[in-house]
Formats: sequence, C-alpha cells, structure tokens
Amino acid sequence: QEAGTDDEASWLPSLITATPEEGFELAVKMSRTSVKTIQPDVEVLKKLRPAYAHDPDSLIAATHVVAVNFRTIAEANNYWRD
Amino acid sequence: QEAGTDDEASWLPSLITATPEEGFELAVKMSRTSVKTIQPDVEVLKKLRPAYAHDPDSLIAATHVVAVNFRTIAEANNYWRD
Amino acid sequence: QEAGTDDEASWLPSLITATPEEGFELAVKMSRTSVKTIQPDVEVLKKLRPAYAHDPDSLIAATHVVAVNFRTIAEANNYWRD
Amino acid sequence: QEAGTDDEASWLPSLITATPEEGFELAVKMSRTSVKTIQPDVEVLKKLRPAYAHDPDSLIAATHVVAVNFRTIAEANNYWRD
Amino acid sequence: QEAGTDDEASWLPSLITATPEEGFELAVKMSRTSVKTIQPDVEVLKKLRPAYAHDPDSLIAATHVVAVNFRTIAEANNYWRD
Amino acid sequence: QEAGTDDEASWLPSLITATPEEGFELAVKMSRTSVKTIQPDVEVLKKLRPAYAHDPDSLIAATHVVAVNFRTIAEANNYWRD
Repeated sequence: QEAGTDDEASWLPSLITATPEEGFELAVKMSRTSVKTIQPDVEVLKKLRPAYAHDPDSLIAATHVVAVNFRTIAEANNYWRD
Repeated sequence: QEAGTDDEASWLPSLITATPEEGFELAVKMSRTSVKTIQPDVEVLKKLRPAYAHDPDSLIAATHVVAVNFRTIAEANNYWRD
Repeated sequence: QEAGTDDEASWLPSLITATPEEGFELAVKMSRTSVKTIQPDVEVLKKLRPAYAHDPDSLIAATHVVAVNFRTIAEANNYWRD
Repeated sequence: QEAGTDDEASWLPSLITATPEEGFELAVKMSRTSVKTIQPDVEVLKKLRPAYAHDPDSLIAATHVVAVNFRTIAEANNYWRD
Repeated sequence: QEAGTDDEASWLPSLITATPEEGFELAVKMSRTSVKTIQPDVEVLKKLRPAYAHDPDSLIAATHVVAVNFRTIAEANNYWRD
Repeated sequence: QEAGTDDEASWLPSLITATPEEGFELAVKMSRTSVKTIQPDVEVLKKLRPAYAHDPDSLIAATHVVAVNFRTIAEANNYWRD
C-alpha cells in the first residue's frame, strides 16, 4: 500500500519548515518513508535494521540519501535565509 | 520494447503534480519505469525483487535514486511553494 | 573510437525534447552512449549485459545514472513547463 | 532520541557561515549528526569507527556525503562571494 | 605531477563547447584526467583498465561520474540553448 | 585535530579561482582535505594509499567526489564565463 493514501492526512503536505534542523528531520523522514514505499513490509524492515545500523558503509550510504533530500528541502526554504 | 511507445498514452506526460506527496510518488514511478526500460523482462524483475527488497544496501541505493528524481520534480514544481 | 565522430551526424545534437518522456529516453540514450564511450568494444558489452541485467544493485546503479542525466535534460527543457 | 530536541539549543540553527572553511566544518558536522540520527547508539558508532576509518572506500564514501552537504551550505552562503 | 602544470597549455582552459556532444566529450576528458590526477602512474592505470572495462558495475560507476561532470558543463553552456 | 585551525592560515579561504583548471585542483584539494578531516592519522592514510590507488572502483569513487566538489567551485566562479 503506497505511503500516505488519500484517506489519511498527507505525510508530506509541504517542504517548508521553520528551521534548518526541522528541514533536516524532514529529510530523514522522507528517506525513511522512501524505504517503506519500496519495501512496505515493516517486519522485513525491522529484521534488516540490525544489519545496516551496524554496517559503516550502509550508514554512510543512508546519510548520503539524507544529504540529497536535505538539499531539496533547503532549496525549497531558500536556505532559511529569510 | 521501450517504456511508453507512441500508441499508448505517455507514462510521463508532465513533471507537474498537485502536492509534494504526488511528486514523491511520481519520483518512485520514474525510478521503477527506469528499471523496466533497462531490464524490460518483467519475469526477471519479479525474480530479482526478493533479493533487493531484503537487502538494506539495495533499499538504500533505491531510495537514493528516488531522492534524485524527487529533486527534479520538486524543482519543476517550484517546490510547491505557490 | 569516440562515439559520434564528425563524419557522422551528432548523436547528441541538442538536449531539447518535446516531452518529459522523450527527455527520459534521451537520458537513457546518453547513459548508454557513455558506457560505449568508456568501453567501445560492443562484443564485451554484449557479454556483460546478462550480468548487470540480472543484478538488482547494477540495475539500481544504472537507473541512478539515468536520473542524473534526466536532471540535466529536464533543466535544459525548463522542466517542460512552457 | 532525535538529534537536537527542543529543550536543547538547535544543533543546526543556520546554514550561514563566515568562511568556506567554516562551511566545510558545518558540512562535516551535518554528516556526522546524520549518522547519529540514523544510529543513535554512540557505543555502536565507536565500535564501527576503526572499520570505516581504515577502509579507503568507506572514507571516500564519507567524503562524498561531506561534498554533497558542502554544496548545500555553499549555495546558502552564495559561495561566500559577497 | 599534477595534470596540466603551468609550462604546458592548460588541459581545461574553458568549460564552453560548441555542441552538447563536445560537452559530453569534455566531461569524459575531465573524468579521465581526474583519475590520472589521483593515480598519476599511467602503467598502473593501464593494468587496471581490463578489470574495470569488463566489470558492469565499474562501467556504470564511471558513466555516473561522466554524468555529473556533464551536468556542470551543460550548465556552463546554458544547455546549448542559445 | 580539525583541518585548518585558526592559528594557521585557512586552507580554504575562498572558492574563487582564476581558471577551470585551478578550480579542478581546488576540488581535488577539498576532496583530499575531507579525507584527512575524517581520518586525521596520516600514517593510516599512507598505508591505505596503495589499496585504493590500485583499485579501479576506488579510483572511480574518488573521481566522483572530485566531480561533485568541482560542481560547487564551478558554480562559485560562474563557470569562468566572465
């Protein structure tokens, strides 16, 4: 089942956040939701957690995805310069 | 057979979506269509599914592609700021 | 021999396409031509095809390259917003 | 526990820095905080340190994340051109 | 010895090219020069060539670098829209 | 010890360079400094050099980081179009 169907409130109503830190947390949320969209079986994800959470290369790869999503959110918020 | 030939409606008529969430779903669709364009044999893809859907590094790599496609769609939609 | 020498018509005359779908197909073409430029021996490429076309991580990595090239083409076409 | 909860000062109050070098250090900080957000168990991270800090591919992958985060910060600071 | 020292003409005098195809070839040149800057020993590079040129994942990774460099050149040339 | 503390001149005073080639060299410098920031032990780095400098995938991954840093520097210098 796709993440966030119509009958629930949207999980991603906007890219706008008040602060860079909230933008960072939204980037983490987007990355996690993205995994759940590709692998909707939460039990499988729970089983996989120990593997990647204890593997430096997996952790680095995950932070890379967060960095890419954070770029998108930072641009959306004009880098919180206003 | 290339994804979306002329006699079918285009699978990617536009990058414009109403909401960030729809933009995210289009990014997932683009990523999946991209795999089918490179490997058109759906039977092969079905056989591969268990392997990557249970491998944390594959899932992270897939979310990275979605994040890159989402950037393109977010820019196209001016980050849904209007 | 570099892809597209002067005596042939250019394989990449322009980044402009009529639709996002054609832009996606150009991104796939650029990615494939890029492989042929790095490995011009088509026989070698044919031998490699089964390996990567049946490996989820290779397929994901290939879609990542398409996503990066698609970004460039989408920007060139102002995201087909006009 | 998410990095930087409300009752503490924000770990990422702004993307603005005085110099490129400070921007680089903020990119390193963002990358490290990102790892801690995904794997909050500092003991686990300490155990992983020797593995990635002595693996060239892990080090290269980590510098790639820093480079992506640095892009975001450089854009936020208009590349320190002013 | 760094690629392109002062006493030789610069190997990268400009990012401007007449056509997208020339821009693509410059992106390939930049990627190759980058490898030589990191590993200046041409004998070593010759020995490595068969390994990566017959490995699909290496070829895909190399095309990814070309795609990133092509983005930079395409932007520099305003996507050859003029 | 972080790269470039206050009592030394900054290792990254500016992103502005006179030419694309100097911009490329700054991108290489940024990538190398980034590795030293993550792994400050130069003896360890010396021991790792032979491993990655003779591994095609490591070399390709390193050129990818240089390409990302070069993008940032090229943008900072308006692609040396002026």
